[in-house]
Amino acid sequence: MDTFQRAMRSCAHKVEGVLDSLLPPDDGPEGRLMEALRYAALGGGKRVRPFLTLASAAMFNVEESHALRVAAAIEMVHCYSLVHDDLPAMDDDAVRRGRATVHIQFDEATAILAGDALLTQAFEVLADAATHPDAAVRVELVGALAKAAGAFGMVGGQMLDLLAGDRDLALSEITRLQRMKTGMLIAVACEAGGIIGKATEGARHMLHAYAHDLGLAFQIADDLLDVEGDAETVGKKTGKDAQRGKATFVSALGVSRAREQAEMLSRQAVGHLDVFGEKAELLRKLADYVVVRGS
Amino acid sequence: MDTFQRAMRSCAHKVEGVLDSLLPPDDGPEGRLMEALRYAALGGGKRVRPFLTLASAAMFNVEESHALRVAAAIEMVHCYSLVHDDLPAMDDDAVRRGRATVHIQFDEATAILAGDALLTQAFEVLADAATHPDAAVRVELVGALAKAAGAFGMVGGQMLDLLAGDRDLALSEITRLQRMKTGMLIAVACEAGGIIGKATEGARHMLHAYAHDLGLAFQIADDLLDVEGDAETVGKKTGKDAQRGKATFVSALGVSRAREQAEMLSRQAVGHLDVFGEKAELLRKLADYVVVRGS
Repeated sequence: MDTFQRAMRSCAHKVEGVLDSLLPPDDGPEGRLMEALRYAALGGGKRVRPFLTLASAAMFNVEESHALRVAAAIEMVHCYSLVHDDLPAMDDDAVRRGRATVHIQFDEATAILAGDALLTQAFEVLADAATHPDAAVRVELVGALAKAAGAFGMVGGQMLDLLAGDRDLALSEITRLQRMKTGMLIAVACEAGGIIGKATEGARHMLHAYAHDLGLAFQIADDLLDVEGDAETVGKKTGKDAQRGKATFVSALGVSRAREQAEMLSRQAVGHLDVFGEKAELLRKLADYVVVRGS
Repeated sequence: MDTFQRAMRSCAHKVEGVLDSLLPPDDGPEGRLMEALRYAALGGGKRVRPFLTLASAAMFNVEESHALRVAAAIEMVHCYSLVHDDLPAMDDDAVRRGRATVHIQFDEATAILAGDALLTQAFEVLADAATHPDAAVRVELVGALAKAAGAFGMVGGQMLDLLAGDRDLALSEITRLQRMKTGMLIAVACEAGGIIGKATEGARHMLHAYAHDLGLAFQIADDLLDVEGDAETVGKKTGKDAQRGKATFVSALGVSRAREQAEMLSRQAVGHLDVFGEKAELLRKLADYVVVRGS
């Protein structure tokens, strides 16, 4: 296992620990809710967003305990969005990360509430003084996360996705949709390191540019996995997009141009990191990883 | 119309205006989402929680524009919870405030997303510098609202409510459930005035005690309305609790003891306001109002 793989695994392990400590135990009268929360957030996932936060925070000499709480809050928002997107009224998915989705394992009402609770708790964690001693830093994180998650971010992106149905979308429409649905949270995960580390405007601009390209590369790679991947390795049903007639980067560009585009974006992302020198090595490796990963 | 009624109406009118300005216009590709957001948050409701925030803030000489933004954020969370609670998988309600509920007017997916967006936007509004110049005040509001809305607040209360089904609950269980489901947000709405106004610990303690009793009185009155109210005046179907065999304060205490209890709690709430003298007049009137209202 190389340095990058070790760093990814170490980050996933630490974030799992912080999530475990932040999520309430599954006892008490409302234990079923807590059980569903823990099921949704623990025990799986590549933890790409937390890795981005930890790797970017490390460039600005941030205390790791602070970065980990922020990373966990961002991951809670990611997990909430998966729970709600999987619901019967939305994408109606039964399998996620190789396990039954929350509404299958529990029921629909519990899944809706577990998602609501995860989203809410993310903001509670960010607002807590344990996350950073400076209230201005905490409130900036809240604002950035809320913006990325809201009507012009993840929620709006999911709405666009549902409205598109099996309609053909122009490449520009697909790009906007994916930027909202997945790109903005990836960008916040990366910029969060700069916010906690009180990085200069210039440095934050570069992080944003990196994350923008990375997010698109990540999504194109996701679309490619749905076409080329094997369900067991990917951890969810593959071939779904084509079956649903869903417009994706692959349906718009074809497999080989989509792959070229992802690789180009990955190189472009890396180009924004020059100012950070050696400190940005993990972020560079991540940009390589997202386009070659098998799940 | 007396002073209190005028103040209630004026507050509702102002909050409507602020919500209108904060919610995105319903154009653009994701217009359907924005339309649902606006449908859920505008054009109705007594705006009791915003009134609490405005009336408590006024005791501490807070700038009204700040109090109004906080009131609007708290009302967004209230509206989100109604949208999600009305969903088919939850309470399955078709009418609210005399109109079709969001999932009936739009569809289920749009209702889930509109709720998610309202919840998220509440935090975005609180985090915005326009809400208060002091970041410490803003982040304290975020933390308090998230706590009241989360797994040990509204979401947990709704889970308990669903888990109870038609089972008989002890009075202590009903009290805990309602404290979580509706009481904590009412308490935050009231305490928010103290937070924005940087009130002393002592004053905030009294606001909390007032809001605690008020919240219970409010819920008992709600249960009474479901038994005694007329659907047209109440704005939603009545007699639902009994039909569902739901445990309420009225099923546990009977109508006349429930009414006595609500009135006692209302008087007790008023008792906590002595330290504020004449400044607390609107809050006193509100405590009278919640137990005599017809909707």
